[in-house]
Amino acid sequence: MRYAVILAGGGGTRLWPASRRARPKQLLALGTPGGRTLLRATGERLRAWPIVAVTAAEQAAGVRAELDWLGDSDVVIEPAGRNTAAALGLAAMALVDRDPDAVMAAMPADHHVADDDAFRAALETAFAAAEASDVIVTIGIAPTAPEVGYGYLEVGAARDDGTREVTRFVEKPDAATAVKYVASGYLWNGGMFIVRAQRLLDEIERHMPDTFAGLQARTDDAYLAVPSISIDYGVMERATGVVTVPGDFGWHDVGSWGALAAYRHADENGNVCDGDAVLVDAKRNITVTDDGVIALIGVEDLVVVRSGNAVLVAPRDRAQDVRAVVAELQRRGRDDYL
Amino acid sequence: MRYAVILAGGGGTRLWPASRRARPKQLLALGTPGGRTLLRATGERLRAWPIVAVTAAEQAAGVRAELDWLGDSDVVIEPAGRNTAAALGLAAMALVDRDPDAVMAAMPADHHVADDDAFRAALETAFAAAEASDVIVTIGIAPTAPEVGYGYLEVGAARDDGTREVTRFVEKPDAATAVKYVASGYLWNGGMFIVRAQRLLDEIERHMPDTFAGLQARTDDAYLAVPSISIDYGVMERATGVVTVPGDFGWHDVGSWGALAAYRHADENGNVCDGDAVLVDAKRNITVTDDGVIALIGVEDLVVVRSGNAVLVAPRDRAQDVRAVVAELQRRGRDDYL
Repeated sequence: MRYAVILAGGGGTRLWPASRRARPKQLLALGTPGGRTLLRATGERLRAWPIVAVTAAEQAAGVRAELDWLGDSDVVIEPAGRNTAAALGLAAMALVDRDPDAVMAAMPADHHVADDDAFRAALETAFAAAEASDVIVTIGIAPTAPEVGYGYLEVGAARDDGTREVTRFVEKPDAATAVKYVASGYLWNGGMFIVRAQRLLDEIERHMPDTFAGLQARTDDAYLAVPSISIDYGVMERATGVVTVPGDFGWHDVGSWGALAAYRHADENGNVCDGDAVLVDAKRNITVTDDGVIALIGVEDLVVVRSGNAVLVAPRDRAQDVRAVVAELQRRGRDDYL
Repeated sequence: MRYAVILAGGGGTRLWPASRRARPKQLLALGTPGGRTLLRATGERLRAWPIVAVTAAEQAAGVRAELDWLGDSDVVIEPAGRNTAAALGLAAMALVDRDPDAVMAAMPADHHVADDDAFRAALETAFAAAEASDVIVTIGIAPTAPEVGYGYLEVGAARDDGTREVTRFVEKPDAATAVKYVASGYLWNGGMFIVRAQRLLDEIERHMPDTFAGLQARTDDAYLAVPSISIDYGVMERATGVVTVPGDFGWHDVGSWGALAAYRHADENGNVCDGDAVLVDAKRNITVTDDGVIALIGVEDLVVVRSGNAVLVAPRDRAQDVRAVVAELQRRGRDDYL
């Protein structure tokens, strides 16, 4: 049977001050239609299939509230955050316990998708391919720009199941390399893949024996001892028989405030505003406010975010450095801002 | 007898979003010691003398709350805002009614003074001079920089009462002229002057007969018909026998957010922060927040203000253009932000 596995753990500080410890990125509504959170939008997009969500204990209540149609056993709790390989291994074990033939579509909870129907069509193709020939099927995104914030997939021959072979996973490139990748037909690695759950466990056993042993022990202590490794690094880059379904459904990983402009409407001066704004001689700025108004005079290419008790101001191309702000607040012990 | 007259009317939009219709600049605490409002600090600085405050009806409650030791008749209500000449004429009439020999020290409610003792010493010299020879005594401020935001006084011969003759009032200069003025020993016009109340009425009668007639009618309608003219333009620039007491007591007219840096401590990168701030690679910025934290990354020479339901971001040298924001909010009918 087909299942969706939603990775709904992790905090992520790249969208501070909107994202906080108590309100991670997937619980934000970042321009999602209907003001839904990214997590709820993700869940509703996948509602055609039974869903298993993996999350941390402290976020479980928030996850259950958003995916409120899930049963108790559909939310798998990580004893601690140990990155995506361990989290997906945990989900795969839960699925195999339930259904030895389970095929899982693994995906993050915090991505933006504009065209849900096109997304589901790509997923159907991927499910069918994974069932027919036991491949690992990634969803490759047709690039709309030479993004440096994403990993890329080098693709090879087309197969008659609607997929193409993946010849190489490549890490986030520099700007010049990204241009080359896009020109050469590389796809964005969207961090979504479809595979039989047992096949994923077999791959973890082969490439990550320590992780596999830790998972098999089925104790919190053993899980805590598992190394923190991403599924891309631990499995996908090493596995053979990886293919991709090229998808084009308005996908974005809202990885930083600077990325927000990519999928939001800009005014005639290139400003993207979420919430009330007054702009005087202001160009190419991004403003986000959850309450009240943001007024800009004579500034360009800034990100200005007001959320709760904090305001962030940074150039668009330095918005990812918000991590330094979060680190400084941690150093000062200002939990009220974290 | 000696009196202080505090001009506590007027809104002023130059400090939006901190200053609002319901909370004009004089009701703000802009780094005033003890967190007092500028108006209360002004009142307490003048408490050695009986005080008369002039204000608008809608601001009277706020003024009475801050100057809470004043009696009912000590707060004079302007039927409408008609600039400083009319407001001071109204105060002078109230004083002459009470005491024909009244000498008044007229001053704005929204200035910053660092050294109250030096301020009062200058005022004592000015009162004595006004009593001894019926001159109009301005307080001239020793410039600390070639400010373009202030008017200047050209000064002449020293007199043996501790004052110097004022040979000319000059309007706000351009930058090059301001440098020349400072080099030539001009003083800032601080908008404070000391004069017998009857002498002020005589000057208004001579130079502003329409205003005088409107005041004498003692009706709201007549006051409404009075032209809106400043005391500097209407009287001071035309009167003879104007002298000045040079004062040096850390005076600033907090006329815009950009001016805030002039009297606040800056960190080693030139940032001036009022309220919580986190600064990463940020230089020469001004941050003001009445609640929560402002985080800056990689920006320079900005003013960032959070006050109530609004955030303002502008380059320091464009902070005075906040008027354009206020005008736009008025156009949109957003009273909740005004």
